Amino acid sequence: MTDLPGIVVTGASGRMGQMLIRTVLDSARARLVGALERPGHDWIGQDVGQAMGGAAIGVHVTDDALEAFAKAQAVVDFTAPAATVEFAGIAAQARCVHVIGTTGMTDADLAKLTAAARHATIVRAGNMSLGVNLLVQLTKKVAAALDEDYDIEVIEAHHNQKVDAPSGTALMLGQAAADGRGVSLDAVSDRGRDGITGKRERGHIGFSAIRGGDIVGEHDVMFAAAGERVILRHVATDRAVFARGALKAALWGQGRKPGEYDMLDVLGLSDN
Amino acid sequence: MTDLPGIVVTGASGRMGQMLIRTVLDSARARLVGALERPGHDWIGQDVGQAMGGAAIGVHVTDDALEAFAKAQAVVDFTAPAATVEFAGIAAQARCVHVIGTTGMTDADLAKLTAAARHATIVRAGNMSLGVNLLVQLTKKVAAALDEDYDIEVIEAHHNQKVDAPSGTALMLGQAAADGRGVSLDAVSDRGRDGITGKRERGHIGFSAIRGGDIVGEHDVMFAAAGERVILRHVATDRAVFARGALKAALWGQGRKPGEYDMLDVLGLSDN
Amino acid sequence: MTDLPGIVVTGASGRMGQMLIRTVLDSARARLVGALERPGHDWIGQDVGQAMGGAAIGVHVTDDALEAFAKAQAVVDFTAPAATVEFAGIAAQARCVHVIGTTGMTDADLAKLTAAARHATIVRAGNMSLGVNLLVQLTKKVAAALDEDYDIEVIEAHHNQKVDAPSGTALMLGQAAADGRGVSLDAVSDRGRDGITGKRERGHIGFSAIRGGDIVGEHDVMFAAAGERVILRHVATDRAVFARGALKAALWGQGRKPGEYDMLDVLGLSDN
Amino acid sequence: MTDLPGIVVTGASGRMGQMLIRTVLDSARARLVGALERPGHDWIGQDVGQAMGGAAIGVHVTDDALEAFAKAQAVVDFTAPAATVEFAGIAAQARCVHVIGTTGMTDADLAKLTAAARHATIVRAGNMSLGVNLLVQLTKKVAAALDEDYDIEVIEAHHNQKVDAPSGTALMLGQAAADGRGVSLDAVSDRGRDGITGKRERGHIGFSAIRGGDIVGEHDVMFAAAGERVILRHVATDRAVFARGALKAALWGQGRKPGEYDMLDVLGLSDN
Repeated sequence: MTDLPGIVVTGASGRMGQMLIRTVLDSARARLVGALERPGHDWIGQDVGQAMGGAAIGVHVTDDALEAFAKAQAVVDFTAPAATVEFAGIAAQARCVHVIGTTGMTDADLAKLTAAARHATIVRAGNMSLGVNLLVQLTKKVAAALDEDYDIEVIEAHHNQKVDAPSGTALMLGQAAADGRGVSLDAVSDRGRDGITGKRERGHIGFSAIRGGDIVGEHDVMFAAAGERVILRHVATDRAVFARGALKAALWGQGRKPGEYDMLDVLGLSDN
Repeated sequence: MTDLPGIVVTGASGRMGQMLIRTVLDSARARLVGALERPGHDWIGQDVGQAMGGAAIGVHVTDDALEAFAKAQAVVDFTAPAATVEFAGIAAQARCVHVIGTTGMTDADLAKLTAAARHATIVRAGNMSLGVNLLVQLTKKVAAALDEDYDIEVIEAHHNQKVDAPSGTALMLGQAAADGRGVSLDAVSDRGRDGITGKRERGHIGFSAIRGGDIVGEHDVMFAAAGERVILRHVATDRAVFARGALKAALWGQGRKPGEYDMLDVLGLSDN
Repeated sequence: MTDLPGIVVTGASGRMGQMLIRTVLDSARARLVGALERPGHDWIGQDVGQAMGGAAIGVHVTDDALEAFAKAQAVVDFTAPAATVEFAGIAAQARCVHVIGTTGMTDADLAKLTAAARHATIVRAGNMSLGVNLLVQLTKKVAAALDEDYDIEVIEAHHNQKVDAPSGTALMLGQAAADGRGVSLDAVSDRGRDGITGKRERGHIGFSAIRGGDIVGEHDVMFAAAGERVILRHVATDRAVFARGALKAALWGQGRKPGEYDMLDVLGLSDN
Repeated sequence: MTDLPGIVVTGASGRMGQMLIRTVLDSARARLVGALERPGHDWIGQDVGQAMGGAAIGVHVTDDALEAFAKAQAVVDFTAPAATVEFAGIAAQARCVHVIGTTGMTDADLAKLTAAARHATIVRAGNMSLGVNLLVQLTKKVAAALDEDYDIEVIEAHHNQKVDAPSGTALMLGQAAADGRGVSLDAVSDRGRDGITGKRERGHIGFSAIRGGDIVGEHDVMFAAAGERVILRHVATDRAVFARGALKAALWGQGRKPGEYDMLDVLGLSDN
């Protein structure tokens, strides 16, 4: 049991932090060795199990990242850009794998991660779900294999609280399709189709956004030709898939040489 | 065999006319007794089976509507508004059921049909598919049964040659949903969702239009709430369904008293 | 606030009991006034909020059904047949609406419920989801409207822990389709299709059972003819829909005269 | 125009033969130079366009394979095993590419094709649709990438005249999934699920067969884990896709060195 890789979770009190903690506790392949919050947070010093409304588990929430990381083999981090950049330096020092699900990083932030990755193993992805990353890869391959007789449409459905359309993941899929065809996505995007649109243009990539209820996230990439269609579909029904993807990345990173990796590397699907 | 209702098809040389003729010839419940084309058309006088590239069937194409209708129990008519209005008068005179799939009628045209229907049995619908008409009816009922916790989305997919979005049938379905809820469709339509849209507004009805390949026509009406979804779906894979709907209407109309009917009457789904 | 109907939940410590409690607590239209467990259960006497691992809410778990029911306007009960039959008598005495989601009742059990319903308002259903009950009703109507040119198939998908196939809900849907057609389901069921089956028999109703992951429950009723298909689909993504259906039934039952009702009555979809 | 590869179609009068002829005539990248039927067939000597009920096209149906093949760059052949084996020898002699869609070949037949392929370019596949072949390849890759936390289910839908279940294509997809996982399909197949089945066994591959209407062919390969699903889907709506796949193979084979190829080679998706 003590040989299992030890994991620290940052942002322990947040919705994603709590889900990560539960995922590590439920896993037979890792153990929780630390839970981090920002200085002054009222969880500091509490047993994290009790703070989450359950039984004590013997891990107390701390604001001392270095001390926490030093005991761990990996840190899983879905926080904010500034914190993540700081954690990257500390993780490098502590020689632990840094799994990053934080979004909204600027180019400057990313440059700092690249610097940290000279001495540290970093796995970073905008979407940690194995399925979605696989779908991105498949989309690129299929778009390369099928010619423009196959019209590409990306259709996504999300809950009624989502404020943007199409989803970031839909755009990633559209980008993968455009990459597969060797075209610029901007030049071929059909978004917000409405009214007298004229015939669909050959080579274009269409997007549709469905909104309703509490749909976690569904994405279809359709390749439609005369007489047949190929559809690559992903359905997420539980946000825990993102936590499980992160844990898988943490385990995969053990013993890996320093550098920047993404979920395609973890899945063994990278083109590189 | 000779007791089967005799059918005349108008616009015999058109794509829809030929499909109607084939449908009548394939049916065990009706027989083809006439095929009409406009004066001067080069099919006039030819055997219609041969004109369509097959074997002779003993029915010659004519431009004399009255003579053709007089021998028939029903006329099936997917032509143009002016012709249809004229045929309505002749069908009334000949006492045959007039099944109308013609679209684009003006209010003035419709008034003339209403006048003809004092003496004639007319069945008219914008979409003759049994399935779509059933879906319209179901949509209204479900929209009335479920409250605004259920977000309504209409999603349609069609071939890449279609020039407008959403499809007319999608709008019919949206109208049925709005009717079920007792709201104005114009006031609650969400069309062409793209960019920073903000959260979905409660009570709205969303539309998405997918375009690709040679998809004949697919329509989903989704009612999505927290934790569950009801979806009413229609898939058309062959335009012959419109011809079969028309033939069903022709048979249903036999012995029916004069008046205007639609496919909901034929299906026994009318609210009236 | 105190004018809101008071609800008692039985089997408070169970998975469904806890979900019912959370649903009542989250509702703006009802309040929790009691939580029941069997004598000797270690939750007895505890604040139910704390027993569930959260904050105190001022309602203590009890094993005294009569005392609890006397303070309530409705009892929501997903327990076991013997307990439910006993609760029915007590609810009748206490004049509260009895909402029953318990399954596996024998004919003898049902006879006792019928007796209790002379003095009490009982709402009982094998599946409390509004959407599924609506689908049952729609299936019957559509099966009656479409003739045997439309092949009926019921397709369901559930999680990998489910031990029976097809699901009870799939069989309810199949029964509704058979009722709509006026045939016996047993006489027309096609189950477990495999190997050299021969052509599909006209009028039969097919069943398919898909198993995988943690799918909560998905049901399709497909009516497939030449050239078109109508599909009625239900997707459940959260077991809370059953709890919300039960609460809706409890509210609907207020002021209703004694008798036995089901979810079709609650939805206003009953044929009666 | 005369530089376009010349194609001969065998079995010209059959449903698939006529579809192949129409596909070649519609193509801008090939021309029809021959149409073959068996000796004594009443199409022999007729113009094939007229025999098919249309206009003359200047190609007469013949029973002399060698003469026909000698004028062609490729022969497309969806006939029967005995004829196909004979044609393979003649095509080798005439140095034309032999595209084979014939099914039901024995091992002895296949050995003869292998012998012919020493001198001839043969492309053979059980399903000539580009989309299905792509799906087979994707299924293998995804099954290799995802572990047994992902339950695999193959779901297919076909018309009501189909006599076997699951479809041959579904079995190909199941085989590809088993190959990807390195297991024997026989050892893990779950077919004809019905009754008290017990929990789904980890690592198994399930099959479901839906039958109704005139569905040409739809195949889903679902990988379902806790919280997410990946679905690879193919929808065929027109048997012409098989003809177009065959023509694509004929063009791809031009200038290719002798040997046996399949559609994965044509698509550039082969592992080899």
